[in-house]
Amino acid sequence: MTERILRINMTTLSGAFEEVPAEWQGIGGRALTSAVVAKEVPPTCHPLGKHNKLVFAPGLLAGSPAAQSGRLSAGAKSPLTGTIKESNAGGTAAQNLAKLRIKALIIEGMPGEDKFYGIQINKDGVTIREEAELIGKGNYEAIKTLMGRIGEKVGVLIIGPVGEMRMSAANISVRDPDGNIRSHGRGGLGAVMGSKKVKYVTIDDSGGPGVEVKDPEKFKNAARAFAKAILEHPVSGEGLPSFGTNVLVNVLNEAGGLPTKNFRYGQFEGHNKISGETMRDTIIKRGGKPKHGCHAGCIIQCSQVYCDEEGEYVTSGFEYETIWGFGANCCIDDLDIIARADRVMDDIGIDSIESAVIMGVAMEAGIIPFGDGAGALKLLEEIREGTPLGRILGNGAASVGRAYGLTRVPVVKGQGIPAYDPRSVKGIGITYATSTQGADHTMGYAVATNILKVGGFIDPLKNEGQVELSRNLQIATAAIDSTGLCLFVAFPALDIPETMTAIIDMLNAKYGTSLTGDDVIALGKRVLKTEHAFNLAAGFTSADDRLPEFFNEDPCPPHNVTWTFTGEEIDEFWNF
Amino acid sequence: MTERILRINMTTLSGAFEEVPAEWQGIGGRALTSAVVAKEVPPTCHPLGKHNKLVFAPGLLAGSPAAQSGRLSAGAKSPLTGTIKESNAGGTAAQNLAKLRIKALIIEGMPGEDKFYGIQINKDGVTIREEAELIGKGNYEAIKTLMGRIGEKVGVLIIGPVGEMRMSAANISVRDPDGNIRSHGRGGLGAVMGSKKVKYVTIDDSGGPGVEVKDPEKFKNAARAFAKAILEHPVSGEGLPSFGTNVLVNVLNEAGGLPTKNFRYGQFEGHNKISGETMRDTIIKRGGKPKHGCHAGCIIQCSQVYCDEEGEYVTSGFEYETIWGFGANCCIDDLDIIARADRVMDDIGIDSIESAVIMGVAMEAGIIPFGDGAGALKLLEEIREGTPLGRILGNGAASVGRAYGLTRVPVVKGQGIPAYDPRSVKGIGITYATSTQGADHTMGYAVATNILKVGGFIDPLKNEGQVELSRNLQIATAAIDSTGLCLFVAFPALDIPETMTAIIDMLNAKYGTSLTGDDVIALGKRVLKTEHAFNLAAGFTSADDRLPEFFNEDPCPPHNVTWTFTGEEIDEFWNF
Repeated sequence: MTERILRINMTTLSGAFEEVPAEWQGIGGRALTSAVVAKEVPPTCHPLGKHNKLVFAPGLLAGSPAAQSGRLSAGAKSPLTGTIKESNAGGTAAQNLAKLRIKALIIEGMPGEDKFYGIQINKDGVTIREEAELIGKGNYEAIKTLMGRIGEKVGVLIIGPVGEMRMSAANISVRDPDGNIRSHGRGGLGAVMGSKKVKYVTIDDSGGPGVEVKDPEKFKNAARAFAKAILEHPVSGEGLPSFGTNVLVNVLNEAGGLPTKNFRYGQFEGHNKISGETMRDTIIKRGGKPKHGCHAGCIIQCSQVYCDEEGEYVTSGFEYETIWGFGANCCIDDLDIIARADRVMDDIGIDSIESAVIMGVAMEAGIIPFGDGAGALKLLEEIREGTPLGRILGNGAASVGRAYGLTRVPVVKGQGIPAYDPRSVKGIGITYATSTQGADHTMGYAVATNILKVGGFIDPLKNEGQVELSRNLQIATAAIDSTGLCLFVAFPALDIPETMTAIIDMLNAKYGTSLTGDDVIALGKRVLKTEHAFNLAAGFTSADDRLPEFFNEDPCPPHNVTWTFTGEEIDEFWNF
Repeated sequence: MTERILRINMTTLSGAFEEVPAEWQGIGGRALTSAVVAKEVPPTCHPLGKHNKLVFAPGLLAGSPAAQSGRLSAGAKSPLTGTIKESNAGGTAAQNLAKLRIKALIIEGMPGEDKFYGIQINKDGVTIREEAELIGKGNYEAIKTLMGRIGEKVGVLIIGPVGEMRMSAANISVRDPDGNIRSHGRGGLGAVMGSKKVKYVTIDDSGGPGVEVKDPEKFKNAARAFAKAILEHPVSGEGLPSFGTNVLVNVLNEAGGLPTKNFRYGQFEGHNKISGETMRDTIIKRGGKPKHGCHAGCIIQCSQVYCDEEGEYVTSGFEYETIWGFGANCCIDDLDIIARADRVMDDIGIDSIESAVIMGVAMEAGIIPFGDGAGALKLLEEIREGTPLGRILGNGAASVGRAYGLTRVPVVKGQGIPAYDPRSVKGIGITYATSTQGADHTMGYAVATNILKVGGFIDPLKNEGQVELSRNLQIATAAIDSTGLCLFVAFPALDIPETMTAIIDMLNAKYGTSLTGDDVIALGKRVLKTEHAFNLAAGFTSADDRLPEFFNEDPCPPHNVTWTFTGEEIDEFWNF
């Protein structure tokens, strides 16, 4: 069986398999979601209207035995930013889809009636059924119910109440191997799914054809070399497995780049109470799991299981950006409260990074005071209920800023700026400004070279070299996001030459191709240019590739630096 | 005394007079506000930040004995649209400023402290004082208090609670000769004034130098010919004086262009209950005034005083667009309720057109049902109180649409579409799409030629000729808005050749110049191009010159027409 496209039309409530057209052969993940959106979605359409499409695509290596290859890309025109969007997540859905030889799932159209539906995919095809029982339910309960209905091993893509209500910070949740929740977080793709009235998609690969590998021996050797590189690198082999991504709280605090009190300062007094080190100790003491993988085949294991004082499960996939955001950014120095917030966000289906920025701006507006953890939890319940205040919040940090007439609103293209202050980590500032998808650290993680000294070192406080750094990283990231590999393979890839060779060898062994490193770079460039062209056609200009003006004017302690790039300097980014 | 610029710096709480630079001599009103904003405001700045400036400029004929010459232009970067903005209003302030020989009032900077201030201008200069008593007060009470403090004849520019809270539908109110309220309605300039912490500006011209007219005899003759033309034309001499602008309800209903139930239909069953004819009868029966001028020297008298059943004053300046919006658009067929809403909007300081579109979208969202007049009044009180729901509403129709994830949101560049359906009055659709200021009928009132058969006739249901019509009207309007003349002089100007001659003669007589008709057209073009250049630099593109997609897809009964212009056809607008 060759790979296929599964196209689901929600207007007619029907699905059909299609051949993969020539132009989409040989690409996967983000390269494919962006190609489909660029070809089929009118750039100026309303993101919640019938012309938008929601596309899921496993990466090129998904379903293979390669380590870290379980990421799923989701793409659409974003209701949060108005740009093209790709957001990728772990969980089991990518591998399930790949094992059914489904290269992309395209959901289009909108039902005429105001009802929700569930989509079930298995080896026999696709079924679309009205869904009533799960509407309004949180993701934890809904996923449990679905697993009871269909089986424990089924992949699940689902929206919570926030997505049902089409709020533009809504995410799409993915079941992880243990039934916990991973998320296509950024850009409000859950609202697109909600607009199409799809509550969930289940993917059952049992009895399916599985994944083909053309040259299994060559693949095995390459996969082994790849895994070795991952485990050898200090970040992917040691830092992340030990402390999760939250290893970064102390690192960024030390660097003066930990945005604090809605981006007023670069250091947080309470950093030790929320650090990765403290979190690890707490987890071990309470009998949680300090290491956990978001998908089968993960050897970095940066996830974890965080329990409460009674040893009861609270959350997993408890990331630095969430902890930074509810912690330093909101001046809440209590990991237990942040963990509860993380669980609620997974349950209601909202992006935790956007929510973190939302809370900081809500505190700026005086809705609750800085440091009010209980207040933040209450605000999340307002979002769950869809109250007017909940809708102001659930539509993103820019929405809160507009509602309360504020200027200290850390967003680019309408999307909240994550956990690294662009004034004191200037490379990531260039990524925020130029990314095709609004402020997003994962688009070109310059923190690696600015702070972690991975791939060399470029002084985070100086402008020199940052545009080139961000450009190279964004190109490489676009390529990695197309393989289905977790982005953390970039750490060994930047320092250990064998990593990239192994990735290319795996691709060639799986597909019988003869790609080179140049081909991979060319792919990354093509993805970025495709996405940029979509945005230009949607009406974006270089005026949108800018940070909010307060970064130019308010110095960030302790370095007391401002953002000093000229527009011309930033616009150099696109010269490639 | 020569004309001067008065520049007020709210950071230092000081004001100073400046000479008029050469480039700003010979222009006034909109030409001047747009020139100042284009020169001094960074196009990408935050509209509520310290880099935006709020500019008031009387027109070139303000303060002279010319009929209809009392309009004041206000300009800034709009927080509602992000574009450049000019909004003009009647009232007494333009004439007061002109008589003090103040050609423009520029308010810039922001105070460091969170306090409000009042600005008092008189023949001796300017005083800036902290204001506490009037904060949170409605405009009716605040204006009364100010008149008690400073005198009955003083000009007042003031914001209500909506502007204080920096909501982007906030207007700036202007006292009319009888102490009632006129408004710089569109584009949220009240929020800009609020961001600068200015509650009010009073202008007392007593003892001032008055206005200079170089050739009084020539002026008198021209002014007489001008007044004659106004009174001769059926629209300005008969329709508007008899029924006010609300003469249009029955006209647009007949034409099938009266947007009904949030732009679902082009006719409203209850049109007779809210028509200009019914309104006139009601006013006369209750002892109100069917005719009233918004400024001294108005001979059209399209305003009125509307009383309740007990004969008590309710509101004045009760316009067609408001009555359409709360009436047909919200399916409320009760003039008394709409009049009460009009009064509340004047009092809290919110644009009545934006509010009308807001209410339609709020009904679309299910916040209250269509037809619920009492509910609409309650929602206005939510705005006054600044509740979360009030903030969703008070930030405009686009804000409501975003909060509730809707696609039927009639806005262009974030500004609500007024009272003429663009599908069945296609010329005005081109104006909505291309206007430099978001959807705004007054920017190029193609309804005149499409429906009223003024300036010829172009079939409203056909695409042919609409782009050229809108272009010519927008150019002429930009010029008229610079003279300080009420836009309704365009009706005689389009049909009676002596009108334009008389206007040019008045300008030449007042300033000792020798302008020709070509100069006036050139001025209009220059204003539009200046505004367009600002918008392009702010990041707008032709993709923003489009109507919402539902107009392309949902036919508007009774003609069952859709919006069928291509982007290329619309973009022809800027070829001049």
